[in-house]
Amino acid sequence: MHFSHDTFLSPLTWRYGSQAMRRVWSEEYKRRLLRRFWVALAEGQQACGLVSAAQSRELRARQDDVDLARAAEIEQTVKHDLMAEIMVFAEQCPEGGAIIHLGATSNDALDNVDALRMRESLDMLIRRLERLLRAIQVRIEEWAHVPAMAFTHLQPAEPTTLGYRMACYGQDLLMDLETLRQRRRALRGKGVKGAVGTAASFQELLADTGHSAAALEAQVMARLGLEAFPVATQTMTRKQELDIVGALSSLASSLHKFALDSRLLQGQMIGEWMEAFGQDQVGSSAMPFKRNPVAAENICSLARQIAAQTSTAWQNHAHAMLERALDDSGNRRLLLPEAFLLTDEILARAGDLVQGLSAHTRRIRATVATYGPFAASERVLLAAAKNGGNRQTLHALIRGHCLAAWEDLQQGRPDRLAERLAADAGLTQWLPAEQVRRKMSDAGAYVGDAPARALALAADIAAALAADPLRQDAGPTA
Amino acid sequence: MHFSHDTFLSPLTWRYGSQAMRRVWSEEYKRRLLRRFWVALAEGQQACGLVSAAQSRELRARQDDVDLARAAEIEQTVKHDLMAEIMVFAEQCPEGGAIIHLGATSNDALDNVDALRMRESLDMLIRRLERLLRAIQVRIEEWAHVPAMAFTHLQPAEPTTLGYRMACYGQDLLMDLETLRQRRRALRGKGVKGAVGTAASFQELLADTGHSAAALEAQVMARLGLEAFPVATQTMTRKQELDIVGALSSLASSLHKFALDSRLLQGQMIGEWMEAFGQDQVGSSAMPFKRNPVAAENICSLARQIAAQTSTAWQNHAHAMLERALDDSGNRRLLLPEAFLLTDEILARAGDLVQGLSAHTRRIRATVATYGPFAASERVLLAAAKNGGNRQTLHALIRGHCLAAWEDLQQGRPDRLAERLAADAGLTQWLPAEQVRRKMSDAGAYVGDAPARALALAADIAAALAADPLRQDAGPTA
Amino acid sequence: MHFSHDTFLSPLTWRYGSQAMRRVWSEEYKRRLLRRFWVALAEGQQACGLVSAAQSRELRARQDDVDLARAAEIEQTVKHDLMAEIMVFAEQCPEGGAIIHLGATSNDALDNVDALRMRESLDMLIRRLERLLRAIQVRIEEWAHVPAMAFTHLQPAEPTTLGYRMACYGQDLLMDLETLRQRRRALRGKGVKGAVGTAASFQELLADTGHSAAALEAQVMARLGLEAFPVATQTMTRKQELDIVGALSSLASSLHKFALDSRLLQGQMIGEWMEAFGQDQVGSSAMPFKRNPVAAENICSLARQIAAQTSTAWQNHAHAMLERALDDSGNRRLLLPEAFLLTDEILARAGDLVQGLSAHTRRIRATVATYGPFAASERVLLAAAKNGGNRQTLHALIRGHCLAAWEDLQQGRPDRLAERLAADAGLTQWLPAEQVRRKMSDAGAYVGDAPARALALAADIAAALAADPLRQDAGPTA
Amino acid sequence: MHFSHDTFLSPLTWRYGSQAMRRVWSEEYKRRLLRRFWVALAEGQQACGLVSAAQSRELRARQDDVDLARAAEIEQTVKHDLMAEIMVFAEQCPEGGAIIHLGATSNDALDNVDALRMRESLDMLIRRLERLLRAIQVRIEEWAHVPAMAFTHLQPAEPTTLGYRMACYGQDLLMDLETLRQRRRALRGKGVKGAVGTAASFQELLADTGHSAAALEAQVMARLGLEAFPVATQTMTRKQELDIVGALSSLASSLHKFALDSRLLQGQMIGEWMEAFGQDQVGSSAMPFKRNPVAAENICSLARQIAAQTSTAWQNHAHAMLERALDDSGNRRLLLPEAFLLTDEILARAGDLVQGLSAHTRRIRATVATYGPFAASERVLLAAAKNGGNRQTLHALIRGHCLAAWEDLQQGRPDRLAERLAADAGLTQWLPAEQVRRKMSDAGAYVGDAPARALALAADIAAALAADPLRQDAGPTA
Repeated sequence: MHFSHDTFLSPLTWRYGSQAMRRVWSEEYKRRLLRRFWVALAEGQQACGLVSAAQSRELRARQDDVDLARAAEIEQTVKHDLMAEIMVFAEQCPEGGAIIHLGATSNDALDNVDALRMRESLDMLIRRLERLLRAIQVRIEEWAHVPAMAFTHLQPAEPTTLGYRMACYGQDLLMDLETLRQRRRALRGKGVKGAVGTAASFQELLADTGHSAAALEAQVMARLGLEAFPVATQTMTRKQELDIVGALSSLASSLHKFALDSRLLQGQMIGEWMEAFGQDQVGSSAMPFKRNPVAAENICSLARQIAAQTSTAWQNHAHAMLERALDDSGNRRLLLPEAFLLTDEILARAGDLVQGLSAHTRRIRATVATYGPFAASERVLLAAAKNGGNRQTLHALIRGHCLAAWEDLQQGRPDRLAERLAADAGLTQWLPAEQVRRKMSDAGAYVGDAPARALALAADIAAALAADPLRQDAGPTA
Repeated sequence: MHFSHDTFLSPLTWRYGSQAMRRVWSEEYKRRLLRRFWVALAEGQQACGLVSAAQSRELRARQDDVDLARAAEIEQTVKHDLMAEIMVFAEQCPEGGAIIHLGATSNDALDNVDALRMRESLDMLIRRLERLLRAIQVRIEEWAHVPAMAFTHLQPAEPTTLGYRMACYGQDLLMDLETLRQRRRALRGKGVKGAVGTAASFQELLADTGHSAAALEAQVMARLGLEAFPVATQTMTRKQELDIVGALSSLASSLHKFALDSRLLQGQMIGEWMEAFGQDQVGSSAMPFKRNPVAAENICSLARQIAAQTSTAWQNHAHAMLERALDDSGNRRLLLPEAFLLTDEILARAGDLVQGLSAHTRRIRATVATYGPFAASERVLLAAAKNGGNRQTLHALIRGHCLAAWEDLQQGRPDRLAERLAADAGLTQWLPAEQVRRKMSDAGAYVGDAPARALALAADIAAALAADPLRQDAGPTA
Repeated sequence: MHFSHDTFLSPLTWRYGSQAMRRVWSEEYKRRLLRRFWVALAEGQQACGLVSAAQSRELRARQDDVDLARAAEIEQTVKHDLMAEIMVFAEQCPEGGAIIHLGATSNDALDNVDALRMRESLDMLIRRLERLLRAIQVRIEEWAHVPAMAFTHLQPAEPTTLGYRMACYGQDLLMDLETLRQRRRALRGKGVKGAVGTAASFQELLADTGHSAAALEAQVMARLGLEAFPVATQTMTRKQELDIVGALSSLASSLHKFALDSRLLQGQMIGEWMEAFGQDQVGSSAMPFKRNPVAAENICSLARQIAAQTSTAWQNHAHAMLERALDDSGNRRLLLPEAFLLTDEILARAGDLVQGLSAHTRRIRATVATYGPFAASERVLLAAAKNGGNRQTLHALIRGHCLAAWEDLQQGRPDRLAERLAADAGLTQWLPAEQVRRKMSDAGAYVGDAPARALALAADIAAALAADPLRQDAGPTA
Repeated sequence: MHFSHDTFLSPLTWRYGSQAMRRVWSEEYKRRLLRRFWVALAEGQQACGLVSAAQSRELRARQDDVDLARAAEIEQTVKHDLMAEIMVFAEQCPEGGAIIHLGATSNDALDNVDALRMRESLDMLIRRLERLLRAIQVRIEEWAHVPAMAFTHLQPAEPTTLGYRMACYGQDLLMDLETLRQRRRALRGKGVKGAVGTAASFQELLADTGHSAAALEAQVMARLGLEAFPVATQTMTRKQELDIVGALSSLASSLHKFALDSRLLQGQMIGEWMEAFGQDQVGSSAMPFKRNPVAAENICSLARQIAAQTSTAWQNHAHAMLERALDDSGNRRLLLPEAFLLTDEILARAGDLVQGLSAHTRRIRATVATYGPFAASERVLLAAAKNGGNRQTLHALIRGHCLAAWEDLQQGRPDRLAERLAADAGLTQWLPAEQVRRKMSDAGAYVGDAPARALALAADIAAALAADPLRQDAGPTA
């Protein structure tokens, strides 16, 4: 029952993910939730007259006394972990023991517990995502007006602003927040439906009591604070977790995009951003001067592994045979905790990354000064076209000068693009040379309405956060 | 420009998918939509005083005169298909030609066009899904009270009803409908934001006009009937299509689950269902009596290929570098049409399958009669437990008899489960033998509240369909 | 450093996979192998005159004294786990400490260690696969002549033999064995190539010694018993592990196919096979008579998760940027152990499954008796065609009778196919009625050369196993 | 039967892939190969006395007269494309028509044809890969001694050579060549085994002829030049194509890695490489000076889509139920041609890319001059350690100076790293200042044995190409 580094320990046990998330996906907590379900079931059945108050009271009194050692002993014989847990609980409750799980099938307990675990996990992730978005909002506001070159095809293109770039990440993550909140709100458990989802066993038990199976289900689920699927087979549909894992995968994609950009911007050749870096941190044993984008690389790395989980979740649902098969059971022990723990880790990392990020403003300004004039040539094109020049003709003319000036730059010769353009009559017939020169001179200001759009997006983030503010952890059950 | 079966032709060209969906993803239609965008842009720019009425009128007059042959000629030289299309359009419009695409970058045109194509495609799929759900609703209502054995682990478990089983598929597909409708409602285009998303070129053009770039964008997008993303890089975020492909993949999973079940139920050994089968259809060249579940197998087959698209969509978004790279361009020419066309095909197939399905009621009744008594033993267990018996003890006792009776059945001996149970004092001390026999005799009725739940789900389907009834194809633009 | 079930513990720590495989992927063993590398490096450098005998002797003496607690302490400060391990080792070796890792970069150590771990893991898996193949060989030989209905589209088709069916699984797994052996033989480490793979640091150290970097590499790798890649960047190519994970995924596919078939055959409706089942094992809490195909379902479940790893491995290689990025580091801590541990588990399960499998011969015979005559109709078709009848005409004629007889069977009426055929003049003009009846009567013998082919495949398995017999675990280093 | 751009046409029909590969995957060519199989079958049966010489002669005479129009007509009625093709062929052959496909099942024909198509496709790809490797070999030899900075974490690390970097791509692709050749050599067809793989129908036909089913199979397969799997169900195992698609996916990964590096190196900020670029090619409609890495981006894009196919291939094999189901049929019409055509495209692109690549040697030299000294600091570390200094202490000391000098560089101040180091007594106590300065001065030469290793790898490529030289297209059948 105790494990250390002389055997395989998942990095999710000791390296990645938060303690709180690990706890949710621990065996002990799972059993605690199972008992919560059995108590809720007994109390619901008591309300329907099937179980005595003493019985349900006894169960509630012992509901937290999970005894993994004893359960493992029993499982040796019965080869069925849920049945073993029932037996331990029954041993602890001389009176209530006999009515634990009454009328239920294993997946009545297990699926509702999984729904509770997914709910708690989603709540944690939503809170982390909200914190990340708050940090991004701050950055957008800070950097909304700071010009920087935009890169297309990894080449400097036209100016944008740092804040606008941030706003693009923020927009993606706002979409993720919306999706996660929807999945969270829509979350449902199996309910109390018995062996093949018909509630036949419960209806049988309730015969002559004046209570319906649906009423019992409502009682139990209210105690768990969970809505039930209207219909189910032996299990609740695996579609729900496919959609949740899909949402985590999509979120991982947003974070990967952000982290990959961060790596490109931290690369020495662009060199515009820098992660926070510990004083004594060793980047490389051989190259002491390296400052690796550790956090960003880690986010990319783990994001891939999250995405990989969707194929298993897809198959689990797509291949669920008739009223159920157990071919999802083994992999769900990995799939679900890994998807949540990995997302937990990269959200936390991304939050720290955004907060610790520093911009090399001197370097950014230098890049804009070097490459901005090429971008400014487009202004010249537009102005000349506006004055009546043929767009296609002007495009070819300016393109020729740009390619030549670019070649100069590559060869280390001074950049003479403005003069080249101002000297070409094909252009100056539509735009006086002086205006050409003026338009070429303040390239850094050519950022359109990027600042305003960035700030509007920051306001959208603020509104989304306010609409559903950081919540306290309600916990699954009282 | 013309192709036949002496070269590779995708089955999506000639075998799978509807004509209407193929049309949306044709090169000609794409160019027609591109011209719609350019017309909308010109008209918006006219409203802002940048373009003359004559120019925009001329563009509108020629907007449907796509000339692929001429475009191909020009593309030979310029190696840029969008630029080639602009040139053809410009040749057709002596006056307006010069202002086509004014201030725009390729992806202003392409991304809005993709949004329009995805919107039309989603509309078609939603209509198909609604029809499928309607057919399922009819089946649920027809079969809500028809008992059938439920199968867990491919073994007969307890009775359910045919309609309840159908309701489980319906519930999955209702979730899909909700998701598709959300994705459809949330659909956005890039807007009119220029080379790196800052709208700098448009702001430049609009200087001194009293109009803002945002106002121009609003004008243009209103003409397209499309909302714009607040911010964008050179492209609109690829996250949107990741989420849409994810939704199609999830839908494909629901259809695969349904189709796989159909195949199991059509298998001769269970033999409870049958697809519609053409009079002259040849099932197998060697085994003339075979009736293959052709439609169901085909749905499973194509569903896998839909799911496979998500990994490419994920990478396209996750690896979008800074303000853009073209590493999504090639695969999106496959990814998007294939995802939509394949989904189109399997939704149509599933609709036909449900409508043409016939149930072998005699066979279904026989199966319930053979296996139902084993399920009924649970009723005995519950009744005895209710009378005070220990659940665990009774469980072991009944299990022993069931295993023995099961063995009899396997060996071809008559089934004596009811007698066995009625003769065991360990049981009859809690439940009189007569009651044991009675509970064992009407196994087929032991379906709990499945009929009621099934009908409630059918009503949910009806409500969802009514809430957003089958719409006429609005088309992307007037 | 110690963990129990109050936190997340991967099922691979406590539920799936063998102790031996877990050990290979433990943190402690990894560090032990790291020290093996450092000792080999020091001894190689001693041979080249760079290091004293006392230094390398001291390292070798302390090579097994991994001290995880001390390493964790140091890692707190330096944030670099490899550097921390070097520091602990150095503390233990006052003399040799200064020359540990001399000239090396982290990945010289880590990549060779990964190669050693993959080699040990592959050896274990190959042994498990060989044992499975041996068990299959035994089954083929046992069942080569036992007729059973073959199922196409889940419908009884024509007879085959149980052994022939087994031979099909065996053939797949022989392909896997071949691939795994190739991957094992081709396995290479990074070698000793320093920071960016040029061996510059080693060449620098060896200047004036008369030894080359290549000679040092050869010395070190010979001590590790590992071949080196000719070239490398900072890391060895990640292609190797992509191909290995691909091989495991392909093996998982073979096992999934076998296990899925097992589930279908164990399903009550076909009911021809049965897994070994423990006396006290509880199949279901609600349905005591169920015997679930637990092993087969588990194999299917975990096989999916193995396949899911390939997408991460693919991205790690495909996105390895220039001389390296760390974006593979995090996920490889999950990817590699999970792929090996899961394969370890399902291979062991499959071996037990095959050994414990029992065939319901009575049931199998009954199925052949019921459905065989339909298959026999093909013999009639062929004989009549051979006598000059038109194949297409006869096909249609027989198909009509089969469909009618099939309908009888479905409706519970007696099967009169033989009589129907013998009475049709369209057929008997080519084949006398008596011959028709005779061909219809011994359907079970109509298994072609399946027994011979099955036995030949068993011999192929035996030959493959003999060619590379079960080896003792050589261990990575002396 | 004729299609143009007013419907969906896959880009693989008109944009990506070669004519030759498209031809292999055309419907017409497939039917031509089907007829080849039927002719081989008839001739084999003639040798066994089942078919007359006139019959088989007639079939051979009409074997190329595929008539798709007539086949489509018939398929309307029989809903079975293979049966339709048989009927057309039979109409063309009054005498031989009756014995076409005698004793065979659809997949006897289809699977062997697929094997032939995969064989031709693999041959084409191997030839393309060989050409690419030849081009890489030339580059390695050309650039073996050209120093360039290596980049780790997208930061300049230490010098390598351009040829050595090329050798790393070459090594990956050599592994791919080995795998493709293995898959090609191992390629097998279904053989001639009938409805469920037992060859029962053929054995029946051959009764009293003195020929065995195995002998007939050998006759037929020899005519096709194809080896047969020893055993098969109704189909040959789908594992073979899983492994082939896996090999293509691995190759796609190698090409993606190369192409991604090319994009990074072409990015203006590193700017060391350039793709060939057409004179009139338009890079961007808005930014005329851009030179996008079109080929490299396209390779990355399509490589992803190849990788996506593996999941479908995996499921097809893993879920093949018993003796077969048709749930692979639909997706294989997409999966196989797409995997081959996409690989065809990116191999051709990569070949052109390598041949057209030009290196900006001036820029490369400048980068080495700027960043090389930091790398050279490692030489100082090693030399000082060799003289007795403590490696860990020296590491910390040098790291401090490097970080400071790096900061200078970032801030635009001159680089004084050599002086800093030469002035630190903690270092000069182990290495005289003069030696420090010398080691820092010729950083570009610090490339270890990279040139020699690169050239050795080039020789390995040459040897591999010579071992299996560019072959003429043998074609599947005479």
